[in-house]
Amino acid sequence: MANFELTRELIEEIRWLIDQKDEALLSDILKDMHPADIAEIYEELSIEEAKFLYFLLDDDTAADVLIELEEDDRLRFLKALPSEVIARRFIGRMDSDDAADVIAELDEDRQKEVLSYLEDISMAGDIVDLLNYDEDTAGSLMAKELIKVKESWNIVTCLRSMRRQVEEVDDVYFVYVVDNDGVLKGTLSLKKMLLSSTDTLVRDIYNPDVIAVSADVHSEEVTNIMDKYDLVVLPVIDSIGRLVGRITIDDVVDYMREEAEKDYQLASGITEDVEASDSVWRHTRARIPWLMIGLAGGLLGSRVISAFEGNISEHPEVAFFMPLIAAMGGNVGIQSSAIMVQSIASGGLGFDTNFKKLLKEVSIALLNASALAALAFIYNFAIGSHFALTFTVASAMFSVVMFASLFGTFLPLLLNRMKIDPALATGPFITTLNDISGMFVYLILAAYFFEVFL
Amino acid sequence: MANFELTRELIEEIRWLIDQKDEALLSDILKDMHPADIAEIYEELSIEEAKFLYFLLDDDTAADVLIELEEDDRLRFLKALPSEVIARRFIGRMDSDDAADVIAELDEDRQKEVLSYLEDISMAGDIVDLLNYDEDTAGSLMAKELIKVKESWNIVTCLRSMRRQVEEVDDVYFVYVVDNDGVLKGTLSLKKMLLSSTDTLVRDIYNPDVIAVSADVHSEEVTNIMDKYDLVVLPVIDSIGRLVGRITIDDVVDYMREEAEKDYQLASGITEDVEASDSVWRHTRARIPWLMIGLAGGLLGSRVISAFEGNISEHPEVAFFMPLIAAMGGNVGIQSSAIMVQSIASGGLGFDTNFKKLLKEVSIALLNASALAALAFIYNFAIGSHFALTFTVASAMFSVVMFASLFGTFLPLLLNRMKIDPALATGPFITTLNDISGMFVYLILAAYFFEVFL
Repeated sequence: MANFELTRELIEEIRWLIDQKDEALLSDILKDMHPADIAEIYEELSIEEAKFLYFLLDDDTAADVLIELEEDDRLRFLKALPSEVIARRFIGRMDSDDAADVIAELDEDRQKEVLSYLEDISMAGDIVDLLNYDEDTAGSLMAKELIKVKESWNIVTCLRSMRRQVEEVDDVYFVYVVDNDGVLKGTLSLKKMLLSSTDTLVRDIYNPDVIAVSADVHSEEVTNIMDKYDLVVLPVIDSIGRLVGRITIDDVVDYMREEAEKDYQLASGITEDVEASDSVWRHTRARIPWLMIGLAGGLLGSRVISAFEGNISEHPEVAFFMPLIAAMGGNVGIQSSAIMVQSIASGGLGFDTNFKKLLKEVSIALLNASALAALAFIYNFAIGSHFALTFTVASAMFSVVMFASLFGTFLPLLLNRMKIDPALATGPFITTLNDISGMFVYLILAAYFFEVFL
Repeated sequence: MANFELTRELIEEIRWLIDQKDEALLSDILKDMHPADIAEIYEELSIEEAKFLYFLLDDDTAADVLIELEEDDRLRFLKALPSEVIARRFIGRMDSDDAADVIAELDEDRQKEVLSYLEDISMAGDIVDLLNYDEDTAGSLMAKELIKVKESWNIVTCLRSMRRQVEEVDDVYFVYVVDNDGVLKGTLSLKKMLLSSTDTLVRDIYNPDVIAVSADVHSEEVTNIMDKYDLVVLPVIDSIGRLVGRITIDDVVDYMREEAEKDYQLASGITEDVEASDSVWRHTRARIPWLMIGLAGGLLGSRVISAFEGNISEHPEVAFFMPLIAAMGGNVGIQSSAIMVQSIASGGLGFDTNFKKLLKEVSIALLNASALAALAFIYNFAIGSHFALTFTVASAMFSVVMFASLFGTFLPLLLNRMKIDPALATGPFITTLNDISGMFVYLILAAYFFEVFL
């Protein structure tokens, strides 16, 4: 019952025991471990060590561990095994959703081979069904295993049928009620079953208020629905309302976590899903694309600035505030776009018309821009900068903050309408664009004010 | 069974019906709605309209809607109600965890008043217990309602006791098994109960492999445990192992979502939890603090640059690349810190020693820095910049990328060790710091190379 914590000592011990081929002691160590913990140990081992350990596990545990591995490790591991072993020892012992996920990672020839070795034909059929759903839809998240009863049955018939059905299902959260055509009618709670007499009919006690999604609904909407209604399981129906599967919260939690990490990384300029433990090469590959965009943007910016060379040479004080103006444009742009990206993702845009949204964003931008411009003005006034510089910095600050706010707000909306992930707008892209345009506005204003005042 | 979508038309209709005081039609509209949907409608109404609608709901629905409201709206609503109504109509009908959450939002005098009006003394006691746990611990997330049976009972006794217990619990996911002292021993699955004969003893069929947490464990660890082991419910025990409550996945999903949003917003320079639908004033307040830091940083940067005024006046081309170098420092710093922040949050730091981490980060930084410096060098060479500028830009690029990578990696680790949220390190803070130090390094190098070459 104690919680497991992976220690370096344990890993050292296990590697040593593998080296000694001490199967008895290793089996003993693994016996009481949770598959998720064994998966953590696996990720610290070489492929040869992992294979040795794998064949000490009983079949159900082996299948569970395989599901818990990171995708890269799982693929490496499966590559080293014949299709028949994959089918019999692993896929055949998984829930249909996990089985479909694992098979989807294999290449097509291998998929067919593995499926052909499955002994349970109806399971193979389920997997093929699941593979047909588009990625990121309810169909791709769901499992086929569930417990259903007919509305015309009584409690005794239900219990008899459920006894048979539970052998295939790990956790029973809900019993679904369907009509003779398999159309979902509602749910039957354990509570109601416990509180009713055995000859009560299902149709008299089931709860018809059930929230369901169609198999082609996007995963993001599935997440929002389960989150909003605090659901643990969500039934999935086909286009004519027949119950085809159910999505459990753990799959949705995984999806949520991945999406949140992806958005966070995009906002930080990382283009690939990486973790601290990944290889140096993978880290470099994930980071360099955006650094290249930044470099290109900065070099383009240097061309913009070079157009004002004479001005800078004559008034080098103009250069003092260049990084400030560039940075403020980037900062304001990121803030505005981050809020839009989150609102789009959570479906919380509200009912404001585009005009109202514009009006609101203009108000926020005006407040921020005025405050920052005023401070920049006061600062330059206080340190005794001449009027031309003071006016340049303050008016550039105002323009840049206004522009970046509006741009940061509407770019995500535009991308979203064009069906491009709006998270792309935060971070890299918007910062660079605002940097360059900010520089340009600043130097134009400087040219003007220095002309007027000096 | 259809899914609900809030439309502007529906809201207009409801407002009109409220205006007409058409209680019959309104009740009819609300009757089949999910509390979460009603809560969405509420947030579009004025406080007077909301109150009118509220008293048309039956008590259980009213309590559920209250839980679903955003905190601000809930507080505004509760302020307008007497303590007795809050206790009888709302708190008394909630699960203990929701009740404690709502009460915790009230000020202390009001808390006592509401608790004194509760008719169910044992519930009041449960709420007081829950209020005593620190925020962000397992204790603060858990509910007291659960179903437990003793290991010495047989199935018949279990069922009899469960029939009584389920009246207080909404959803039954697990039946917990305890000994005579209330110490958690394991779980009893519905599956096992269905498959065993009625005189079987609990002790012979329960599953002793149950993962539990102590009430003082941090919420982040709770999240990681439930995520890792794919749990829907997690039992909570006290220091001597007695079962005191259970945490359900929906509470953890809410916590996860909030944390992910907080990290994302921090990384984007937003200091308060805001949504697109919040007021202009709240948006400004959430954004301005970091803009002030950015402004202060930029002004400090302008002082650094002004120390090199003579150099810039003589060689204005030095200014062309200032924004590029500043931006690269910021970009690289954000990337490195974002990866560390995520690794710390997910507990996935691995077993590398600090020395190994340093070595790895140095390798990644070296690759990125060399590539970027080489490109900057080639660019300047290609456009025919003189050697002094070419060397300055390339060597500054190299230094800034190296420094920002290492700083971005180790600042989050340092903050984490000092028990400060490492997410603070991404975004604002690190960008500004890297901007300024990058400027300084660049101008020092410029001074040196222009001295050497010209």
